[in-house]
Amino acid sequence: MYEYVHGGDIYSDPSLKRDKDMLDYSANINPLGIPAGVRSAIKAAVADSVNYPDPFCRELRAKISQFLSLPPEMIYCGNGAADVLFRIMTALQPKRTLVLAPTFADYEKAALTAGSKIDYFTLNEKNDFAVTPEILKAITKRTQMVVLCNPNNPTGKLMDKELLLTVLRHCEELQIPLLVDECFMDFVQDRESFSLLDQLAGHPGLIILKAFTKIFAIPGVRLGFCLTSDASLIDKLYACGQDWNVSALAQAAGIAALDERDYLAETRELIAVEKAYLITQLRLIGLKVFEGAANYLLIKTLHNYPWPDKLKKHRILIRDCSNYRGLSAGYYRIAVKTRRDNRKLIRIMKELVKHDLFNYIN
Amino acid sequence: MYEYVHGGDIYSDPSLKRDKDMLDYSANINPLGIPAGVRSAIKAAVADSVNYPDPFCRELRAKISQFLSLPPEMIYCGNGAADVLFRIMTALQPKRTLVLAPTFADYEKAALTAGSKIDYFTLNEKNDFAVTPEILKAITKRTQMVVLCNPNNPTGKLMDKELLLTVLRHCEELQIPLLVDECFMDFVQDRESFSLLDQLAGHPGLIILKAFTKIFAIPGVRLGFCLTSDASLIDKLYACGQDWNVSALAQAAGIAALDERDYLAETRELIAVEKAYLITQLRLIGLKVFEGAANYLLIKTLHNYPWPDKLKKHRILIRDCSNYRGLSAGYYRIAVKTRRDNRKLIRIMKELVKHDLFNYIN
Repeated sequence: MYEYVHGGDIYSDPSLKRDKDMLDYSANINPLGIPAGVRSAIKAAVADSVNYPDPFCRELRAKISQFLSLPPEMIYCGNGAADVLFRIMTALQPKRTLVLAPTFADYEKAALTAGSKIDYFTLNEKNDFAVTPEILKAITKRTQMVVLCNPNNPTGKLMDKELLLTVLRHCEELQIPLLVDECFMDFVQDRESFSLLDQLAGHPGLIILKAFTKIFAIPGVRLGFCLTSDASLIDKLYACGQDWNVSALAQAAGIAALDERDYLAETRELIAVEKAYLITQLRLIGLKVFEGAANYLLIKTLHNYPWPDKLKKHRILIRDCSNYRGLSAGYYRIAVKTRRDNRKLIRIMKELVKHDLFNYIN
Repeated sequence: MYEYVHGGDIYSDPSLKRDKDMLDYSANINPLGIPAGVRSAIKAAVADSVNYPDPFCRELRAKISQFLSLPPEMIYCGNGAADVLFRIMTALQPKRTLVLAPTFADYEKAALTAGSKIDYFTLNEKNDFAVTPEILKAITKRTQMVVLCNPNNPTGKLMDKELLLTVLRHCEELQIPLLVDECFMDFVQDRESFSLLDQLAGHPGLIILKAFTKIFAIPGVRLGFCLTSDASLIDKLYACGQDWNVSALAQAAGIAALDERDYLAETRELIAVEKAYLITQLRLIGLKVFEGAANYLLIKTLHNYPWPDKLKKHRILIRDCSNYRGLSAGYYRIAVKTRRDNRKLIRIMKELVKHDLFNYIN
């Protein structure tokens, strides 16, 4: 049986979805929720759904183009970033792909589906799972594709921009496409210092993956895109799947979302403040916390304590990261939410430590 | 540049989409429009879009299961039937695929994307583009996949069920999967006599493709599914693409749609009556009409008259079928709409014949 390996599974246990007080810390979604303007735009677009959606997402791409100050020809939209990722692999058909470990599982899944073998660049906990210059040695003449995630999921770790540029040049020398997933970059305060968006024009081998899902809290709508100055790749992306992958509802949501500038500023402010709160509190509880730049935190328990099961009884979901390649039992990922929710999470965790955790100490 | 080849393109010319009086006869959508219950269900689901959608579409599959009296394990849902089609090809990786000519272009596109070669069974105008027993000879030991469309698009022609069962047995003997696209079967009055839904249980090589798009007039929402008793194929379909291909909005739309039994009955009645009206009127105008079982009609002009351009000036779109393999210039497809719309179409066509067509007679 096919097994779902990601966070956000509120459906396997039907009582969870019905529970209005359930707190899903297992999916990394903007805690401010769906912007009101986006909600209205989707509702207004229901009537338009009587027509096939625009296969070229012309209005949406024009809006993204304006928002990012990049030409619309560089933009390809899909049914969530995951759809775009699978299309990229289908279009490029790499025979050997280098991915990080740990990282988001679907780079490997998409590359395998396209028939690729996978090489791993294993990140080391000793240096907080940072990508090091050693990665240059891992990108060889046999490599046909490199996928990075910046900030990385589940560590939240940003890559040093100088190193990233060196990797890009190295890939170019070897004529290998470099895919950088920047889906969580929108949560980063000083993102201009880390993003490769400013490198697209001169580097046709660079592909940047982006999503509306996380930053606008619309994972149920499905909307993502990629950016590249390689016009032939954009053409292949259109050709290697169905024409109508982005629904009319998602296109309307995206167009409205990019007007939400205040919401974006408020989000970054909230994430910074709440992340600091969670880091302090989680450390007080006795957990090891890896300080990341995104809207989630990787934590490690020092005891053999089944946090997900215990928290689930209090209607709180967290992401067990033991199924990430390069991690093992005891690693969890926790989203950053609002103070009210975070306080509840911390309160329950403290109670468990006080009254229950000692039962698990060997 | 990648070229869009289907009907329903109301975006290339922005004035079309803005024009409330524009009549799109180029896309085969239920003229009754989106059922009110489906509209409300989508709007109500906007708030749920803050969560990832259920990757296994459990509630929706349970509803389809109930509606079709088939087990939910036989059902796989996707982002429109086109998404499901591409997944099937990715999962099965046929090396040689037999398709009809003319037929819907995406069977070929999806098979090519999966690396297949294409063989064509060319339908003959002399017998109204019917699939004949000759097809059995075209399915050889080298064939790895057969795709049929019933009723076929753009001809609307149904396949004789006895012949279809013979083809199914022939495919089974050769251990070849048979994909039958029944996306337009919902418009057929006596569909139980033609559909292969009753054959799924005993025939794991049979895959039936279905859509919500056409019958519930929601092409902009994206929702389709397939049915097969081959559990290993269902498993592969989940594995060979992203987990969240069906949006929360589409799942809600589908669940609500299947309650619309009166709408479905009314639709079939309307299509039967209006198709008869259009056939009579189009023949009076001097066009050759192929009588089909679906909600569209294939027509052939006897003069060298540019119908699509002429009708577009009156804000009416029809589908030029000259880009269908097996057809040539002069074939058009016209959707069946409401009497009000059909009257307008016929009135304008009559005027063009009376005042303009003679300029084009050599």
